[in-house]
Amino acid sequence: MTTTTYQNSMARRVHGVPQSFIREILKAASNPGMISFAGGLPNPGLFPVKELEACTTMVFQKHGLKALQYAETEGFYPLREYISKRYKQRNNLDISPDQILITNGSQQALDLIGKLFINPGDKVLVERPAYLGALQCFAMYEAAFLEAELEEDGINTTELQDNLINHDIKLFYGVPNFQNPTGISYSAEKRKKIAEILAAYETIFVEDDPYGEISFTNRIEKSVYSYLPRQTILLGSFSKIIAPGLRLGWMVANPEIIKKATILKQASDLHSGNLTQYILYEFLKRNDIDKHIGSIASHYHHQRNIMLDALHHYFPSSVQYTQPQGGMFCWLKLPDPLAARDLLNKALQEKIIFVPGDTFYALNPDQHTLRLNFSNVEELVMVSGLKKLGSLI
Amino acid sequence: MTTTTYQNSMARRVHGVPQSFIREILKAASNPGMISFAGGLPNPGLFPVKELEACTTMVFQKHGLKALQYAETEGFYPLREYISKRYKQRNNLDISPDQILITNGSQQALDLIGKLFINPGDKVLVERPAYLGALQCFAMYEAAFLEAELEEDGINTTELQDNLINHDIKLFYGVPNFQNPTGISYSAEKRKKIAEILAAYETIFVEDDPYGEISFTNRIEKSVYSYLPRQTILLGSFSKIIAPGLRLGWMVANPEIIKKATILKQASDLHSGNLTQYILYEFLKRNDIDKHIGSIASHYHHQRNIMLDALHHYFPSSVQYTQPQGGMFCWLKLPDPLAARDLLNKALQEKIIFVPGDTFYALNPDQHTLRLNFSNVEELVMVSGLKKLGSLI
Repeated sequence: MTTTTYQNSMARRVHGVPQSFIREILKAASNPGMISFAGGLPNPGLFPVKELEACTTMVFQKHGLKALQYAETEGFYPLREYISKRYKQRNNLDISPDQILITNGSQQALDLIGKLFINPGDKVLVERPAYLGALQCFAMYEAAFLEAELEEDGINTTELQDNLINHDIKLFYGVPNFQNPTGISYSAEKRKKIAEILAAYETIFVEDDPYGEISFTNRIEKSVYSYLPRQTILLGSFSKIIAPGLRLGWMVANPEIIKKATILKQASDLHSGNLTQYILYEFLKRNDIDKHIGSIASHYHHQRNIMLDALHHYFPSSVQYTQPQGGMFCWLKLPDPLAARDLLNKALQEKIIFVPGDTFYALNPDQHTLRLNFSNVEELVMVSGLKKLGSLI
Repeated sequence: MTTTTYQNSMARRVHGVPQSFIREILKAASNPGMISFAGGLPNPGLFPVKELEACTTMVFQKHGLKALQYAETEGFYPLREYISKRYKQRNNLDISPDQILITNGSQQALDLIGKLFINPGDKVLVERPAYLGALQCFAMYEAAFLEAELEEDGINTTELQDNLINHDIKLFYGVPNFQNPTGISYSAEKRKKIAEILAAYETIFVEDDPYGEISFTNRIEKSVYSYLPRQTILLGSFSKIIAPGLRLGWMVANPEIIKKATILKQASDLHSGNLTQYILYEFLKRNDIDKHIGSIASHYHHQRNIMLDALHHYFPSSVQYTQPQGGMFCWLKLPDPLAARDLLNKALQEKIIFVPGDTFYALNPDQHTLRLNFSNVEELVMVSGLKKLGSLI
């Protein structure tokens, strides 16, 4: 081997991968004394450590040998059954365990979807702005991105329709509940409308829903899946409602898709962590999950209120921001000509960090936007951080 | 959506995926009363259940919040450090933690390697026969396979050389220690020779080593990696030496490759199970690992002896078989014209099951071969099963 790097050997798909600016930011965020609005982490104070510990002891004592052995690619059957039943109870959705594949968080579901559907150059429509992890994942399969604006009540359906008319779109990826990075949720009308529009095409809607249960209201909006099950792949995750370190999520789809995705998953990593699936299932079975999730939602709700109050008091009125009804993020738009990266440079000197919004666009980044996380910042720190940030603008 | 299946929407790569006959076989193998030589499972009786349980309690009590949170894509640093130190102690290899990426078993490392290097149509050289999981994984990246014969002392190096002269080969994938499916190990001479041959090309050697520590002798052969580190990616796994249900393995490579693979892994599933990495690290730190692995090797050695004795006594001398010095498999060649699938059909009537060897070939399957697993069959059952099987031939 005579070359000095491996660039020549590497596959074409690798060259298109966007650099993750967020990785760099998160490293800076871990510096001592830094006030970080940058992360996307759930609040560890709400992890059910004691309960998981008790369940783990139980798993080792009752199922040790099975939990430590190789297992089915589809995932632990009782866990898939639990997810199926919860959809019925919470959303009145009929989803059989055969329609559920357990994955390593919903990120792996995105990867399997990319593998299953995207040929190089295939068109993928995303929200503007969009979840960065999906952009990175689909970029790896050499997707050609298209965007439609994410408005206060969800994606612009005229843009969606126009894109579908003008392009052959393989996948449309969206996060209808408390989106990352904006915190925006789709209205009931838009969800229905999206299903109506999509029904005339072959485009598959990837409905990513990691935050749906972290709701600050009692409303449960119907999923696009509920209107258009054959054409929707619905993703869920235990990362925000139990703990991300377990690395468990799931994919719901037509059994034909699940069957193929299972073969792809087998070739990718055989199956998800078996011990952790046993532990998680014991936890779900033995605890009041609604109560547990309710306490997370109520805590984040309080954090969000603190954030919105501080934005209201300490930020100039020319700064626009979303009013998230759930999830972990708030989205800001700075007045022209102030760019978020310039603000970040000043903020870093004050030991404050956030993610500039330009990172979250598939195509033409808006330099004036930024994302603030409210789930994992302590109340007093949040107030003093936002006060300083407001004075910098 | 008007089509009745998703075939039109699915990516080209999916159509090339070989059906896993093994999945079907393993389902049959779980029928009650079935004597199974078909699996590739470690013996669960040797899982350190009690010790892992104790470590888990410790992890929850000392590191609960951290172990349950999101973590670095590279993997838990102390675990990578442990692997680094073990390579130094056991193999006298200098591998820094920065050269190690934690993966979901070595299967995910194969997937990341496919993603990183294989463009559709790129040539990948494999052993004849080869590990099925690698064939499935690389097929997904639309690799064009080439084969070189696996002889008693390793791959035929003349064929290797000829292939390299005649083709532009991206990857050469092999399992030099106690290969699956054959149990064959490469001689010291061939390892060195392979490194010498490869050095003149840009081909990367993927040296998969899940069984290396399960050795029935005191010899530790040098890895091809030790001769040619810049051009080799070395894979390891905790599945056979601790427990597969943890889903943890690793990839060793030049830091430049690891850096890219880490970005790909981030897009694939963010990181491997964090809780399980903490548990595994505690286990490795607090236990005599050499003793633990020694007891597995000694048990499998005994099982292998029983198998070879039974093959010697109950099988016609026209049946050829390997003499594995480690690992979990023995490989048989039936005399012409007896096909392994025909034998399997007869064996199934006697409630005996094994994997016909044709499954393990990238190109032209040899119908007369079959794989027998000896790690997970009880002694008396093994003898009676092989006696029956011998009488069927």
